[in-house]
Amino acid sequence: MAIVTFRSESILREGLSVENRAGKFTVLMDEPETLRGTDTGMNPVEMLLCCLGACQCIVARLFARARKIQVQDFRVELEGDLDPDGFLRGRDGVRAGLQEIRYTVHIRTDADEEKVREFIEFVKSRCPVNDSLLGHVPIVQKGIVIDK
Amino acid sequence: MAIVTFRSESILREGLSVENRAGKFTVLMDEPETLRGTDTGMNPVEMLLCCLGACQCIVARLFARARKIQVQDFRVELEGDLDPDGFLRGRDGVRAGLQEIRYTVHIRTDADEEKVREFIEFVKSRCPVNDSLLGHVPIVQKGIVIDK
Repeated sequence: MAIVTFRSESILREGLSVENRAGKFTVLMDEPETLRGTDTGMNPVEMLLCCLGACQCIVARLFARARKIQVQDFRVELEGDLDPDGFLRGRDGVRAGLQEIRYTVHIRTDADEEKVREFIEFVKSRCPVNDSLLGHVPIVQKGIVIDK
Repeated sequence: MAIVTFRSESILREGLSVENRAGKFTVLMDEPETLRGTDTGMNPVEMLLCCLGACQCIVARLFARARKIQVQDFRVELEGDLDPDGFLRGRDGVRAGLQEIRYTVHIRTDADEEKVREFIEFVKSRCPVNDSLLGHVPIVQKGIVIDK
């Protein structure tokens, strides 16, 4: 299959607000007032967490049938730690980026636990955003919650 | 300074659409119809590119004064390549994530070229999303366009 190239554009607007475009969509990002922004949208780090969660959701839906698992609900809770000493102050030895990403998957399914664990592992392995983040940031799967 | 923890949640909705929440904000992500989605929002890979662009815009604004450069406009164009053989087919040796990210910075400023290059390099080094992506994905700065 041919390689697909995605494109986007980010334009700095008033203060710290940024207009982001891809295809026909526009999404604002900004910072909260505590970070000198005007709080008109998520900040890029929150959105990065959302990308990781959304990508896993989509991969789960795309492959559930092929992996022979019924998925009624799928939800990912995420958190990421940022050390302002790196980002704002540039202190030696402190990274500017996320120190760690943690996430918990919530899934509603009748499948047994082993099957669920295998499926979540598969989802992670095929998730483009997860793969793109591998390297610098430890990504910790805190747990899987199975709702029946 | 204390470490800041950001939180988000991604919930699979109809088809491939995903509702993403962080703080008071909600953003939909989806896939185009060619990828079996319903095209109600950017996909997670497009949004990931936006995160990188927006983060650089915000860092540029935050530090322009301290770096003694006037920034009238700042805009980032980005592209990223995905190989469906990795993501959809899981072919051995083909990564599921982005093969490469490329970006071009457009800046309107009266500063000279050397000052601009130094500033863009500084922005990259302090950008939390850029730092978080380091490792697996080659991130190529294609160029800097200076508008006077």
